[in-house]
Amino acid sequence: MNDKILHTTEHVLQIAMAKIYPNIKRVMGPAIENGFYFDFDLEQKITNEDLPKIEAEMLGVINQKLSVTREEVSLKQARELFKDNQYKLDRLDEIEKEGTVVIIYRIGEDFDLCAGPHVNNTSEIKAFKLLNIAGAYYKGDEKNKMLTRIYGTAFGSKEALEEFLKNRELAEQNNHRKIAKEQELFEIYPELGKGLPIWLPNGYVIRRELEDYMIRMERRAGYKHILSPVIHRDELFKISGHLSFYKDSMYSPMEIEGEKYYLKPMNCPAGMLVYKSKLRSYKELPLKIGEFGTVYRFEKSGELQGMQRVRGFTQNDAHIYCTKEQLLDEFEKVFDLLLQFYKDVGFDKVQYVLALSDPDKEKYKFCGSRKDWEWAEDSLRQVMKNRGVTFTEEVGEAAFYGPKIDVKAVNVFGKADAISTIQVDFNLPERFDLTYTDREGNKQRPYVIHRALIGSFERFFAFLIEHFGGAFPVWLSPVQVMIIPINSTHVEYAQKLKELMVQEDIRVEIDDRNESMGLKIRDAQVQKIPYMVVVGDNEIKSHCLSLRLRSGEQINGVTLEEMMDKVKKIYLTRSLELW
Amino acid sequence: MNDKILHTTEHVLQIAMAKIYPNIKRVMGPAIENGFYFDFDLEQKITNEDLPKIEAEMLGVINQKLSVTREEVSLKQARELFKDNQYKLDRLDEIEKEGTVVIIYRIGEDFDLCAGPHVNNTSEIKAFKLLNIAGAYYKGDEKNKMLTRIYGTAFGSKEALEEFLKNRELAEQNNHRKIAKEQELFEIYPELGKGLPIWLPNGYVIRRELEDYMIRMERRAGYKHILSPVIHRDELFKISGHLSFYKDSMYSPMEIEGEKYYLKPMNCPAGMLVYKSKLRSYKELPLKIGEFGTVYRFEKSGELQGMQRVRGFTQNDAHIYCTKEQLLDEFEKVFDLLLQFYKDVGFDKVQYVLALSDPDKEKYKFCGSRKDWEWAEDSLRQVMKNRGVTFTEEVGEAAFYGPKIDVKAVNVFGKADAISTIQVDFNLPERFDLTYTDREGNKQRPYVIHRALIGSFERFFAFLIEHFGGAFPVWLSPVQVMIIPINSTHVEYAQKLKELMVQEDIRVEIDDRNESMGLKIRDAQVQKIPYMVVVGDNEIKSHCLSLRLRSGEQINGVTLEEMMDKVKKIYLTRSLELW
Repeated sequence: MNDKILHTTEHVLQIAMAKIYPNIKRVMGPAIENGFYFDFDLEQKITNEDLPKIEAEMLGVINQKLSVTREEVSLKQARELFKDNQYKLDRLDEIEKEGTVVIIYRIGEDFDLCAGPHVNNTSEIKAFKLLNIAGAYYKGDEKNKMLTRIYGTAFGSKEALEEFLKNRELAEQNNHRKIAKEQELFEIYPELGKGLPIWLPNGYVIRRELEDYMIRMERRAGYKHILSPVIHRDELFKISGHLSFYKDSMYSPMEIEGEKYYLKPMNCPAGMLVYKSKLRSYKELPLKIGEFGTVYRFEKSGELQGMQRVRGFTQNDAHIYCTKEQLLDEFEKVFDLLLQFYKDVGFDKVQYVLALSDPDKEKYKFCGSRKDWEWAEDSLRQVMKNRGVTFTEEVGEAAFYGPKIDVKAVNVFGKADAISTIQVDFNLPERFDLTYTDREGNKQRPYVIHRALIGSFERFFAFLIEHFGGAFPVWLSPVQVMIIPINSTHVEYAQKLKELMVQEDIRVEIDDRNESMGLKIRDAQVQKIPYMVVVGDNEIKSHCLSLRLRSGEQINGVTLEEMMDKVKKIYLTRSLELW
Repeated sequence: MNDKILHTTEHVLQIAMAKIYPNIKRVMGPAIENGFYFDFDLEQKITNEDLPKIEAEMLGVINQKLSVTREEVSLKQARELFKDNQYKLDRLDEIEKEGTVVIIYRIGEDFDLCAGPHVNNTSEIKAFKLLNIAGAYYKGDEKNKMLTRIYGTAFGSKEALEEFLKNRELAEQNNHRKIAKEQELFEIYPELGKGLPIWLPNGYVIRRELEDYMIRMERRAGYKHILSPVIHRDELFKISGHLSFYKDSMYSPMEIEGEKYYLKPMNCPAGMLVYKSKLRSYKELPLKIGEFGTVYRFEKSGELQGMQRVRGFTQNDAHIYCTKEQLLDEFEKVFDLLLQFYKDVGFDKVQYVLALSDPDKEKYKFCGSRKDWEWAEDSLRQVMKNRGVTFTEEVGEAAFYGPKIDVKAVNVFGKADAISTIQVDFNLPERFDLTYTDREGNKQRPYVIHRALIGSFERFFAFLIEHFGGAFPVWLSPVQVMIIPINSTHVEYAQKLKELMVQEDIRVEIDDRNESMGLKIRDAQVQKIPYMVVVGDNEIKSHCLSLRLRSGEQINGVTLEEMMDKVKKIYLTRSLELW
């Protein structure tokens, strides 16, 4: 139903635009998730301020209660109808190539090329709204003309529109890019490059806390960690096969003294070298080697999105080398680590996907026997069942080198992306000829689990920001305490407090601006700082703190020592509570 | 004196070689630090096992007490003398171009092109030794023929040679590459690339400890930290000027969607962007922004050396933005931080160098007024004087953008390299047009101190390994405790102990090989593991540990809790003591 309303409203938009801007050329536009857009070739520059005027014109069209009719025409007829519009003629050429039928929809006297579907009468559009104007190159190619793209949406009831707008506002407020601006978490600079964010001090605090948390958790679970360079020789990528099957995601090579080097798109090749660098015995297995490895992968600039989609990112990566007998047990351990991680970080809205092979597809015939695939897929399925996790299965979504569990998160606008992955790799152990010596002294091939609990610190950060709406738990908060002196006579005391807290590694700032206390508290609140300490004459006299929590709660009569002990305890236990 | 002996011994080597290998072509060779080498064009492949035979022949020549004479000859005469040796004819062409005099030295009937100086008689060579054979391309160019290079040394007394050989053996034992092999600290893989080491688990523990130490110390000192990508657009390097003045040290660019990207050779450009990303007030100064930034710089493959000279490395970098009035104070604070760092790490053998400008040199006229240079140079000098540090001054060694303090360490073979640097940057604030608003609301240009307490984690690691001879302090030791079960019946108990220690974040391993206790203790000793815990029936019964320190000291009757408390305390305080 809603798709029909969207298509018709989009057509109504065209009619309104043509009335207001007679020289306009209409290009094209689809229905998209929760709305539509349409591109116009327009002499004038128009802005969001013009939208109400256009909406008024659209309302006029809708109120005429025009009927909508579908018509099939020949290519010849169509070319005659659109002879003044080169964009439509281009589209007709494409339709000719595709060999599909030419359909036009008529609304009153107006008509447009459109496959539909549409409602029967404009009166069925009960509520609509234009949302935004943006520039867009014709066919997305920057060599082409820049067009004017108008976004809008429409619904069958006023209530539905209102709910949509309310959710949209909420989403925009929690959009990670908006919060990142407010809290100075990261920044992308055009001079430095698209999709290449700099972690600003506040963001880097969180990144480092996550790293520290991970390395500690993994060490306790028996992992060891390596660090490999960001560039490798082509030789290594020939061995690993990346230059055959992953080249499209890799950047162009550099020449060093006649050798070719590539930015690494994955941490696996270096990991395999480390395994191979000495003879391995069954006694060492399971061997768990992790890396905070920074990889670079090509993404089209149109796909880039804040920290969620970037061109270079760091993975909390690891390979687990084990015997076949150990594999199921190791899957379970990895999965438990994953659950523990989500729990500790307070990150609970995820979707589990079991990505399986499709036995009929050619791409699953390169490595691993059919029996091994099935057994590995069963094992992964069993692990999630054992843990009582809800998951979906997607046949044909496995990597060509093995099945995997992907965990996805959804951003405020409803777009999902993978954040964690647990995979079996049937490919690299073969390619690198990995072996271990078994109890009887024979060479055996190890099984390899490839896992990234944080598939990308950058992407996970984007989701984390949105998940908490910027109100991070204490252990992740970039600034944990804001000291607010009531006036300038209290600044010196505030500095003493700060120094004492800094020596205890509490992250603390002073707001010594010449602003009212009310404003300073509001600003700290916007920054989502967990603790605000107000310092005035009373506090200095009584040696007690006036403490205000981010939640609004007021805590009085607490000494500095008590407060520091509490905050440090909350910090060290990574508690999600504030007090 | 010794230079003369070296030159003559080298000539004696040639005579001996020509006797043993009549078809040999002599190429060339200089005296180097503590020795000499000479390159031969030789049909046969010879190895270090051939050296005694050659030494015997050399001794025969020396014992003939041949006199050494100098002779100036014309180019024509020289070309006649060396007409059968294309290498010498090449060298004569060079001498002709240089316009210098042609000198030959005669030893008995033999003669060679050589500028000298030499001793008067071979009998003055009282002691000599051939050290090594290696391959070397003619003129260092891999397109040329591979020659046979023989290294040797010589002295005026047997005692001097013996002392040299003893020191050399000691140096080789402590060479960071040798220790790194024994302790599995890092590894360089030819498939991955020259000068691009992987930090192995044991090495990465140390790297991470150093990072954690640094970030904590710097945070307490008011630093904040960012993290920027490893590649930047050419646009940024045009602004920073690196593409004009630093291009030779940069790798070739990559193309991404029509834009050029380079591996960053320095962290400064991204740092400047962050400063510039918002309006700055005098209230924020001094602003200290650090980065563990990974940079890639070109080094010729011949210059690469383990972790000491690599092609990609990470700096503990920071920029301090301040007013002119704050500069001296900030220098002092940075210098104190540096001294604190060396003290905490127990690293005390360094050389301080004040690198000054040379007012006559063109390269010091690009940025900063003469007055500013002198004042900054005086300030740096003053800081070191105030701290009572011994330093040398090197005129003309400043960077073109400002004076600096370099701190150098010396490796076991006597080769020095800079490990820390404190610089003034007069260039980038101009190029990026950095400003802050002063108390009166006027725009001012900040002063920038650029400092790297660890100029390269890689290089510092090389020096650290050699400094401790692999016996790292407890907080840096990759494995802190080795549990040694006396036989297989004690392994289970050992695993329990291990698990308890792991949960306290103590780095512990079990040596459960079927080997004698003596051998296991010796191996742990070679690995320089601080604590060895031997587990047998007595220990299980008494619930006490049998603890052996790396120093050889035996500690009995200590409980696990007591031991863990002690080790954790030593760890957390970064004590250099073992008990």
